[in-house]
Amino acid sequence: MTKVGVAGYGVIGQRLADGVARQGDMELVGVADVAATLPVRALHERGMPYKLFTAMPEKKNLLTDVGIPVSGTLEELVQEVDVMLDATSAGIGAKNKELYRKYNTKAVFQGGEKNDIADVFFHGYANYEKGLGADFLKLTSCNTTGLIRAIDAIDRAVGVIKTAITIIRRVADPGDYHRGLTNALKVDHAPSHQAEDLMTIMPHVDATGILVHTPVTHGHIITPVVTTKKKIDKKALLEVFEAHARIRVVRIEDGFVGNASLFKYARDLGNLRGDMYEIAVWEETIVNSGDDIMFAINIPQEAVVIPENVDAVRAATKMQMTREEGTAKTNEYLGMK
Amino acid sequence: MTKVGVAGYGVIGQRLADGVARQGDMELVGVADVAATLPVRALHERGMPYKLFTAMPEKKNLLTDVGIPVSGTLEELVQEVDVMLDATSAGIGAKNKELYRKYNTKAVFQGGEKNDIADVFFHGYANYEKGLGADFLKLTSCNTTGLIRAIDAIDRAVGVIKTAITIIRRVADPGDYHRGLTNALKVDHAPSHQAEDLMTIMPHVDATGILVHTPVTHGHIITPVVTTKKKIDKKALLEVFEAHARIRVVRIEDGFVGNASLFKYARDLGNLRGDMYEIAVWEETIVNSGDDIMFAINIPQEAVVIPENVDAVRAATKMQMTREEGTAKTNEYLGMK
Amino acid sequence: MTKVGVAGYGVIGQRLADGVARQGDMELVGVADVAATLPVRALHERGMPYKLFTAMPEKKNLLTDVGIPVSGTLEELVQEVDVMLDATSAGIGAKNKELYRKYNTKAVFQGGEKNDIADVFFHGYANYEKGLGADFLKLTSCNTTGLIRAIDAIDRAVGVIKTAITIIRRVADPGDYHRGLTNALKVDHAPSHQAEDLMTIMPHVDATGILVHTPVTHGHIITPVVTTKKKIDKKALLEVFEAHARIRVVRIEDGFVGNASLFKYARDLGNLRGDMYEIAVWEETIVNSGDDIMFAINIPQEAVVIPENVDAVRAATKMQMTREEGTAKTNEYLGMK
Amino acid sequence: MTKVGVAGYGVIGQRLADGVARQGDMELVGVADVAATLPVRALHERGMPYKLFTAMPEKKNLLTDVGIPVSGTLEELVQEVDVMLDATSAGIGAKNKELYRKYNTKAVFQGGEKNDIADVFFHGYANYEKGLGADFLKLTSCNTTGLIRAIDAIDRAVGVIKTAITIIRRVADPGDYHRGLTNALKVDHAPSHQAEDLMTIMPHVDATGILVHTPVTHGHIITPVVTTKKKIDKKALLEVFEAHARIRVVRIEDGFVGNASLFKYARDLGNLRGDMYEIAVWEETIVNSGDDIMFAINIPQEAVVIPENVDAVRAATKMQMTREEGTAKTNEYLGMK
Repeated sequence: MTKVGVAGYGVIGQRLADGVARQGDMELVGVADVAATLPVRALHERGMPYKLFTAMPEKKNLLTDVGIPVSGTLEELVQEVDVMLDATSAGIGAKNKELYRKYNTKAVFQGGEKNDIADVFFHGYANYEKGLGADFLKLTSCNTTGLIRAIDAIDRAVGVIKTAITIIRRVADPGDYHRGLTNALKVDHAPSHQAEDLMTIMPHVDATGILVHTPVTHGHIITPVVTTKKKIDKKALLEVFEAHARIRVVRIEDGFVGNASLFKYARDLGNLRGDMYEIAVWEETIVNSGDDIMFAINIPQEAVVIPENVDAVRAATKMQMTREEGTAKTNEYLGMK
Repeated sequence: MTKVGVAGYGVIGQRLADGVARQGDMELVGVADVAATLPVRALHERGMPYKLFTAMPEKKNLLTDVGIPVSGTLEELVQEVDVMLDATSAGIGAKNKELYRKYNTKAVFQGGEKNDIADVFFHGYANYEKGLGADFLKLTSCNTTGLIRAIDAIDRAVGVIKTAITIIRRVADPGDYHRGLTNALKVDHAPSHQAEDLMTIMPHVDATGILVHTPVTHGHIITPVVTTKKKIDKKALLEVFEAHARIRVVRIEDGFVGNASLFKYARDLGNLRGDMYEIAVWEETIVNSGDDIMFAINIPQEAVVIPENVDAVRAATKMQMTREEGTAKTNEYLGMK
Repeated sequence: MTKVGVAGYGVIGQRLADGVARQGDMELVGVADVAATLPVRALHERGMPYKLFTAMPEKKNLLTDVGIPVSGTLEELVQEVDVMLDATSAGIGAKNKELYRKYNTKAVFQGGEKNDIADVFFHGYANYEKGLGADFLKLTSCNTTGLIRAIDAIDRAVGVIKTAITIIRRVADPGDYHRGLTNALKVDHAPSHQAEDLMTIMPHVDATGILVHTPVTHGHIITPVVTTKKKIDKKALLEVFEAHARIRVVRIEDGFVGNASLFKYARDLGNLRGDMYEIAVWEETIVNSGDDIMFAINIPQEAVVIPENVDAVRAATKMQMTREEGTAKTNEYLGMK
Repeated sequence: MTKVGVAGYGVIGQRLADGVARQGDMELVGVADVAATLPVRALHERGMPYKLFTAMPEKKNLLTDVGIPVSGTLEELVQEVDVMLDATSAGIGAKNKELYRKYNTKAVFQGGEKNDIADVFFHGYANYEKGLGADFLKLTSCNTTGLIRAIDAIDRAVGVIKTAITIIRRVADPGDYHRGLTNALKVDHAPSHQAEDLMTIMPHVDATGILVHTPVTHGHIITPVVTTKKKIDKKALLEVFEAHARIRVVRIEDGFVGNASLFKYARDLGNLRGDMYEIAVWEETIVNSGDDIMFAINIPQEAVVIPENVDAVRAATKMQMTREEGTAKTNEYLGMK
């Protein structure tokens, strides 16, 4: 059993804990946080299914004062585990790294951290082998992780030369009050960082793109225009996507008319927290533009990176030595395909 | 074991099925619907934990053509159960009633149906005893059901003379595409039907109010101004609400800053579908206006009526003969308090 | 001709300038700001109908570097005018006050400033006479200013004892990107400051209330429950409101179904910037709650305070000595009634 | 003076009337509508600057009953003018065409009508000459009209082979209550009709695209990926756009951070109804994707088609015989460049 800890029990950290807990060959030793946030309060109300460690021992009272039991410190947690999944706020991971290094504990960082934090930029499907035995891995953010699933799948099928993406992103997560947008679209400087991040994992692809923020909370939509080495049509693309365990092909005709349909569907499935691990591609959006191909992807931002994080644990600790075996184990335990 | 069926597997119907399935003394025989909607597709993808019956046998192929197994017809379901919970679209319930009458099956209708469909207007806490043995009961809609919990609790404590409510409602459920509102508030003719519906259950209270639609999807906020027989202050009101199993007192200070916090919290709790049965009252919103009292309630519109529907089954079939026993059983099985 | 200057050329400042410019008996000497914000750029593109003064002479280049002509400094502007309307960001007004005092220039501050900045809390309709000859006046914010119009009108008709208000507020102005809310309602600690501010102008009324933020940009809706000395019914209340030059009675039946209808209508009227000075009351929302009365008001937040600011200039400089004369002059020049 | 009438006084019709009224060489004879909608009520409150004709003489009382003066019938209006601009709801134009034909009155239809209504698909910049002397012209809808401005400009500079567009559209106009979307993105079948419509005007370009609806009310954002005959870089593209009277190059750095900034800026400019005729391109969004070029455009949906409609009057009546002269006259009177 590979022992895993999670630092930061927010939107991503909660889901990492849930995802690790579902792996039959991993043990979730505990999660670390600082204050009695809503997720921590919910953990308490649920009866502490996961042990909680404090990341700031000197402020332990923030938790104990409201009756939340603390099982130790982050430093203690780090010593008990093989791998830490670090889902703290951007910048904190860099500090935590010193702790991880001190105790020779491997660590996986999220997309928000700076690139120099890691030895390897990792994606379960696109470059699993690069992560084998690595000490410090960095995942990409939600949009890039999901996008790479699609682009990597096309690349393996017909070769990808370049892609120009439009990202229509949600501006806040459900429950966020610290950020929001009201009746406005917002543009960012191009190229978007997601396009640049894609190239850290797939350096042979020329990627650029424009990002537009929209006032919604669940699910980004990305519309990549992909230039391939060999032309691929809609039928062939559908076969590529349907064969992928982490890509769900859906149809407008069946009622999947937008990102809200997928969020609703995940809740109707009874998925924990109403989450979905798969990206979705709408069948009716696939069109050729000359020899290029274009389609629309849905990115469920809260949970999409969980599988690749679990893959990273597998690669870093050499639980499985190949992309096929590593991702297959993750998929099996998370119930995909 | 009381046998229960559910007609209409939409937003409410799904949750009625879930709620009944959790009752240790009831058996969910099955659910009925017509087409391969997203909830029905999700039921299929989950492996059919509930049996599905077709409400339109002549259109059974809408389900079977996409591989969804059908266990029979609504008419057959009605014959197998003691009580039907009817959560069909407004107007369909009236047609279904003929079927229920034909087979002497009791039925509980939702707030959207016309008043003449029922023998009794029912609320588990406010008038349980009126439902004892009744054949056809009608619940109130989400806002009224939640509001009555609070007003009834105050009424039992100090007596309520009148209330003037402002309802700030969500305009659509998560996943809805057939209705919506964008950057607009919308007012309705006053008095709002919720105030009038409250008086069907609590005829001794003079209720009126104004309803404003807002472009959000989870959780109404109601601000009643309540005139009581005996003045009640904030501290005493808090005690009344904290003693109520279906009312959750929350604090802005703890991070519950709006309706989205409660939706997030329900998901973080791991509640099925991210649902919450309890209404919430924000402690920091309670103020006296002269001798009147005013506060803000959160109504989780998707699930709030489930407990009172289960209560209705208990009353109609005389499983428990008193309000205290009936609601306590429901609360126990639904994990409240 | 009373000479007037405006400090701060943002949402309110622009509209104060427009409003003063329309007064046949006032001269707008100029406006002061710091940077090349969108309003200042628009002023430039319009050909500088108003002279611009810099509020930070040491950063004059922020304006001149992009070709925007500067006519002098705020300190110079202050010396040229009889009254300054200060619409700077909260807190800046307190600093500017030193300048106003230095040159014996009267000033009118907006609702966002602290109460101790002013000698008099002023409202054109509720207490015009208190502002006569005053040096430093403070207006109330948009919601309170609009609300007081209605409450004062009722008070003069039948006497107001108390009011419990629910404020359903817009969270951002059109074009705001520094704040927003997405798919969420947010509650504030009660009583809301608007209720407390009302009592600074109308101390004989007992006011309290709850404020809820909603993700919309144009127009707050307030639903006061008003307890009066003498009962007033819908018909009588309509007469009171219809006689008021700054209250517009509208009907859902005519197409005014919400705050967005009023914003649209102001644009369709060809009003400058799509603004409206009047509050609106929806006829169909007026209901009695026992002997109390309740109704829904629309507050066009960007422009509603302009008339009362102009009134303040009139009172402070004794252009008119009575409420009736002062407000009538303002109304005439702004085209109301 | 060319005499012009407008049928349909809604969002587009009002603006067509305003635009024609500003042309020094045209006379707006009047506008026609049916009912006392908000725009018609606003026309009345403004003192009837335009004469109103009824499109349904048998229901003239819908207008006169509320005191709105009617100057005649649509049939009479048609006989008085040289050209009708038809901005009625989709489908009505086809009926009105019979009337236009009966009196040999030329007509310009909007993008919502079916293609077979017109002899010529028209765009002032892309194919002015095709409209010369034509009887029935059809414009494209807002997105396509604005998009063609940009694509045509590139085409004239370096030749356009193909384009793959993503349209991020507003779902409702400010003031709309008959449609809306709440916390959801919605996808449409691809290719979007805008791409197909572009090819009716520019048949030598291969266009396709995906459309995503977003819950906002002002301004679509389009991100075309354009494949050109000769590569064009950012600097050269900026020169092309800056030379175009109906394209406004804006910068995020200057405060134009999204569609809401442009709506705000148009209001701050004091433009009638807060309208803007120009599309905008964000300088910081322009990027090359290999030899292709990509950028983000803002489409102010309410007013963007007005200039091309006026161009259509010029072409149909041969007021100017060339694209350069025709569009220049329109631009001059509308104050562009």
